[in-house]
Amino acid sequence: MLNKKILNAPPRTIMTPGPVEADPRVLRVLGTPILGQFDPAFTTIMNETMEMLRELFQTKNKWAFPIDGTSRAGLEAVLASIIEPGDTVFVPIFGRFGHLLTEISERYGAVVHNIECEWGSVFEPEQVIREIKRTNPKIVAMVHGETSTGRVQSLKEIGKACRENDALFIVDAVATIGGIDVKVDDWYIDALIAGTQKCISVPSGMAPITYNERVEHHITQRKKVEKGIATEADNNVRTRPNIISNYFDLSQLQDYWSDRRLNHHTEATSMLYALHEGVRILLEEGLDIRFARHKLHEKALVAGIKAMGLSLFGNEASKLTTVTCVIIPSGINGEDVRSTLLDQFGIEIASSFGPLHGKIWRIGTMGYSCRQDNVLYTLAGLEATLLRKGTLINAGKALQAALDVYDSELVHV
Amino acid sequence: MLNKKILNAPPRTIMTPGPVEADPRVLRVLGTPILGQFDPAFTTIMNETMEMLRELFQTKNKWAFPIDGTSRAGLEAVLASIIEPGDTVFVPIFGRFGHLLTEISERYGAVVHNIECEWGSVFEPEQVIREIKRTNPKIVAMVHGETSTGRVQSLKEIGKACRENDALFIVDAVATIGGIDVKVDDWYIDALIAGTQKCISVPSGMAPITYNERVEHHITQRKKVEKGIATEADNNVRTRPNIISNYFDLSQLQDYWSDRRLNHHTEATSMLYALHEGVRILLEEGLDIRFARHKLHEKALVAGIKAMGLSLFGNEASKLTTVTCVIIPSGINGEDVRSTLLDQFGIEIASSFGPLHGKIWRIGTMGYSCRQDNVLYTLAGLEATLLRKGTLINAGKALQAALDVYDSELVHV
Repeated sequence: MLNKKILNAPPRTIMTPGPVEADPRVLRVLGTPILGQFDPAFTTIMNETMEMLRELFQTKNKWAFPIDGTSRAGLEAVLASIIEPGDTVFVPIFGRFGHLLTEISERYGAVVHNIECEWGSVFEPEQVIREIKRTNPKIVAMVHGETSTGRVQSLKEIGKACRENDALFIVDAVATIGGIDVKVDDWYIDALIAGTQKCISVPSGMAPITYNERVEHHITQRKKVEKGIATEADNNVRTRPNIISNYFDLSQLQDYWSDRRLNHHTEATSMLYALHEGVRILLEEGLDIRFARHKLHEKALVAGIKAMGLSLFGNEASKLTTVTCVIIPSGINGEDVRSTLLDQFGIEIASSFGPLHGKIWRIGTMGYSCRQDNVLYTLAGLEATLLRKGTLINAGKALQAALDVYDSELVHV
Repeated sequence: MLNKKILNAPPRTIMTPGPVEADPRVLRVLGTPILGQFDPAFTTIMNETMEMLRELFQTKNKWAFPIDGTSRAGLEAVLASIIEPGDTVFVPIFGRFGHLLTEISERYGAVVHNIECEWGSVFEPEQVIREIKRTNPKIVAMVHGETSTGRVQSLKEIGKACRENDALFIVDAVATIGGIDVKVDDWYIDALIAGTQKCISVPSGMAPITYNERVEHHITQRKKVEKGIATEADNNVRTRPNIISNYFDLSQLQDYWSDRRLNHHTEATSMLYALHEGVRILLEEGLDIRFARHKLHEKALVAGIKAMGLSLFGNEASKLTTVTCVIIPSGINGEDVRSTLLDQFGIEIASSFGPLHGKIWRIGTMGYSCRQDNVLYTLAGLEATLLRKGTLINAGKALQAALDVYDSELVHV
């Protein structure tokens, strides 16, 4: 009987750009019994999580907490809380998720200006800065790591230009946080959105964000506490139109995440446990060591892919460490290869979106999935699958090339 | 060092109106390894969950799936996807969560008409129906079980009147689903929102919803698939203004939860596992047996409270099975009692909101927390705490009265 089946999740090697395998220690804490949301034992966990998130984000910002929803819930909470109808937003697009920033901004009434570069490359900071100076937007929103094209955008110079031009700089770091360096304060980022299901190795369902006083000042001007719990003083501070969404209203959420503990939603207990453990593990490993680990396994994967005779997609200088895009050899059905990898090997790699669909595979090296055994098994699986389908590739070279990379490192990280 | 602490969650007996204790079997499946969102093994779990939710909701609706967020994310998804600026919404208010329905509706541009009855009572259906006929609203939104006052509203006659007046009937059943009877189809409910953290005994973080073809028809007219993945055909069906929120856009979510598997968010894997198991357990127990269990433990709790000499708050005829509101005896500091219960006994009960804050305690009997041992321990803890603070109550009577209830039942459920 279909509707009474016991949950059945077969083992997988997940090498997509997310969701990736959760750390077993994270999975274990998910089973911790529930606490009430205003239990001091729970608010302590909330505070500890904020403290650890600040360290992960490399920021002194007061506000660093998760939105209870998937990564795009974090994007929407930040954009919806900042953007007022008619605001000018500048979004340089270099892949799908630039379109998403544009889409959400427009839904909240922004007048969005885009420049776009070819998918597979990124912008010279100078080009973006020129456009900021020319158009003087209120907000600049950008993706840091584009999973759709496997590119990473340099941000620091752009952030500095935003600050100089009094624009708010909002960054989507969902694909990079915990995998490569993200410096919120040093890069002049005013608000940043992360995701859990990629390099943090926590299941999907929370979106840690951070924002500084410039953003807080803006949000506080829009403060509206909901009926039934608002005090008279609550709504008197408002000098700008209130934020439309209740769920994503950062003026209420920051009161929930402060000592006031304003009753808003009921915090997602188990997911917060998972985030707490995921970030704790990450900081215990150490940011620099973790970034080096991501670099190493990417290097081994890329060496294996190239040794097989396959080519990488996109501009090499802007390659994102955590996503490797591989051009599907001509005559090969990419989806057919992906199915075989999943059905025969239990390995999942990804396809891509829009103009790149059917043209590239995307292989993630993120978080707990970013391991030597996973890289070696994925190369082995891909080689065997391609050979089985009659593709002309170099047999037996990929694993040797990857092992060469591992052997050349003094310490396996 | 504060920011590297291992997660520490002490054991608790949680007798609030939510979040309550998660079923240990639910906690166990939370540790199941991750699957990719488009892995056939995962989409099978998505489909099984939809099938089980239909049974829980007692509906033949095609659409029954969770929103990835806490309960109010479900409220906002439904209201934001239906309401267009200028729409008339009628919300009869009998507690805090009627205010929340009003609040969210107004944020999305609705013109809301309210009637309010004294907190502690509910509406005669005739009164609501008269108002529907008089004002002819496009939408009627109501709470089924009000946790803030511990009341339950009779809905069937109101639902019938909505259908006859061509109004859409939206119901917040967060506090009742899985604990008392909720009949979506029989009661003419067009859209219903549930929560996981109360009678379903799954952690907070998902909001299962259902809606029928009347609502779907409306949503489809507002369809907007986001940039970067929309096909030309996608946005041609739109004849009404698009839904503002991207995250809560049911026109995209229903494409994600159908065979099309439109890429929207990354489904919250572990929480879906938990929901799947929670609803499976619930249906395995059987709806009627589960409702009878909730009745029994409420009866024992109420008998104990009364035997102690305490009084219940509110109109008896409309008492909500899953929440018992107790009047705080005069001269007693309610928060002080709650603190002692938590600190000495590890028992959590709730206070209330707005006009009832400091006037009543609220004790939940919900889901996995709704058990004989929990009821007996809570009564023992409350009695001992009150005696310790010098309250004049009947000593030694509460547990005897509760045991009398249990003994009088042929079968302990």
